[in-house]
Amino acid sequence: MGYKIEKAVENAGNEIKTAKRIAVQLPDGMKAKSAEVAELIKKQNKDSEIIVLGGSNFGGCDIRDKEAVSVGADLLLHFGHADFGVQEKIKTVYAEIQSDLDIEKIVTKAAKEIKEKKIGLVTTIQHINSLEKAKEILQKNGKEVFTAKPKGKAAKEGQLLGCDWSAGGVLKGEVDCYLYVGTGNFHPISLAVDTGKKVYVADPEFQQVRELTEFKKKLFAQRAAKIDKAKSAKKFGILLTTKPGQMRLKLAEKLKQEIESAGKEAEIIEFDNINPQILPNFKLDAYVNTACPRIPLDDVEAFDKPILSPPELEIVLGKRKWEEYKLDHF
Amino acid sequence: MGYKIEKAVENAGNEIKTAKRIAVQLPDGMKAKSAEVAELIKKQNKDSEIIVLGGSNFGGCDIRDKEAVSVGADLLLHFGHADFGVQEKIKTVYAEIQSDLDIEKIVTKAAKEIKEKKIGLVTTIQHINSLEKAKEILQKNGKEVFTAKPKGKAAKEGQLLGCDWSAGGVLKGEVDCYLYVGTGNFHPISLAVDTGKKVYVADPEFQQVRELTEFKKKLFAQRAAKIDKAKSAKKFGILLTTKPGQMRLKLAEKLKQEIESAGKEAEIIEFDNINPQILPNFKLDAYVNTACPRIPLDDVEAFDKPILSPPELEIVLGKRKWEEYKLDHF
Repeated sequence: MGYKIEKAVENAGNEIKTAKRIAVQLPDGMKAKSAEVAELIKKQNKDSEIIVLGGSNFGGCDIRDKEAVSVGADLLLHFGHADFGVQEKIKTVYAEIQSDLDIEKIVTKAAKEIKEKKIGLVTTIQHINSLEKAKEILQKNGKEVFTAKPKGKAAKEGQLLGCDWSAGGVLKGEVDCYLYVGTGNFHPISLAVDTGKKVYVADPEFQQVRELTEFKKKLFAQRAAKIDKAKSAKKFGILLTTKPGQMRLKLAEKLKQEIESAGKEAEIIEFDNINPQILPNFKLDAYVNTACPRIPLDDVEAFDKPILSPPELEIVLGKRKWEEYKLDHF
Repeated sequence: MGYKIEKAVENAGNEIKTAKRIAVQLPDGMKAKSAEVAELIKKQNKDSEIIVLGGSNFGGCDIRDKEAVSVGADLLLHFGHADFGVQEKIKTVYAEIQSDLDIEKIVTKAAKEIKEKKIGLVTTIQHINSLEKAKEILQKNGKEVFTAKPKGKAAKEGQLLGCDWSAGGVLKGEVDCYLYVGTGNFHPISLAVDTGKKVYVADPEFQQVRELTEFKKKLFAQRAAKIDKAKSAKKFGILLTTKPGQMRLKLAEKLKQEIESAGKEAEIIEFDNINPQILPNFKLDAYVNTACPRIPLDDVEAFDKPILSPPELEIVLGKRKWEEYKLDHF
């Protein structure tokens, strides 16, 4: 998959022209393009000094503003995500990256395969500029198409985040199903869990149309197993992150009290990234995550101990029924 | 290997008694003891709130002061290392951790095996309280023993750091060989490389006396191979860290100029920890490290691209001869 990098740098142009030292934050999939990005920046400001920030960049929540300040930058150029509403410690430009994959063929295929009439249309920031085109294709094929502005952290009409699916969720009463244009299952699965409706994926990378009912069943089976395992846990770690857009300290403190009230032990542990390499150093039985809501769902088998979401902890502590399962979000 | 945790917490007592929220930083080997540490702190200040910092803690250079500030702490309790001279952003107490391993048996064995008479004695902070005892054992066995105050970042008489072996180095003219009391080879190998003298290790964990000549030969062969591989590199990444005690931004900028003057490409990349998982995202041919000087030496085979020290880069660029090989240090 490629990205329209040149356009993204051009869009950030004015701020680039006056900066002296620019800290550049790239998602992992774009890190290989770091030299190309530097060259494009130099085209606009040949005197600028560029320092690439090598750490993670998982979203508009994962802002490396402190690192940019530490290396003496006067501008942080964050690639790949829209503004998430973080109060940055340094002037920050969000250079959104559009995918260069054409969605026409796969959305046409989806339009023919989907039986439902009223479709809620959603995507991620990488394909947001293709949303109008997708809508037209669906309408030409006799569908009624609905899109909405998000109510949470997402910025644009029809945009999903891993922690904010409201651009789809608010359409629950109006639509028969959802169509997600994009790669992966984890952004749209939230809609399947939250609304109970069918969710179709038109994946322009793998040129595949799929529906998420089976994926949701597997996910639920996995979550039920983790919750069951955590019921016998005595020592809990409550995972907290200091990422600017993800820190939920009050929630962490509340969870600690709830766990201790239930006669179990709890400690709050701060992380930048929560990774399978470092967690085993702690000899705890289970974890509750207050950082990115996707952590308990992504790469779940890489962690040997259960990592629960806050609502899943309520199930473990007997405060919530499995039938009332809900997803964690910001 | 165990540690005298209770004593370390007691030594930090007065600051603990008045703190409201304490951020606790533990080396990986001690993270399993986080609940025990919290309990010991609570004994001295039952109203204190404790947040464990889960990130790395590789030395007194690796201070998580920014993270402690972020979680609202008013005290950072750093376990495992002596003060390295970092200007912390928060009140910080260094709770040094003494090993509970007895060194008597293994130093007695070393005294009998070492043929040389004049011995430079060195160790790490974990065994610093055993230094006097080691000296007595060696003297009883007819040795002349020398110790020295470090000239660099290390704090105590006879103390080695991975980036400061001056407590041994300054004795070069007076001693026949060195004895290092402690585990691992990487702290004392610096003395073997820098002085050319024999270095013995009295390892109280494995109850083994060993000499480092063969280890040094292997290390040099490995470094020669990495340097050779880097000679054909066109694109260099210059690794910079924002760890408070390790950031060498000016050196990174200087190296960038030198590489570019030699007609090659260079970019500066900032990291917290430099790890084998994230580096392959960058499509560069070789790296030069300005963070912890041990990075090019430790876990070297886990990285698929060569990571050079600044003096090794000079060899690659033809500015230094292999015969003038020297180690990087702070």
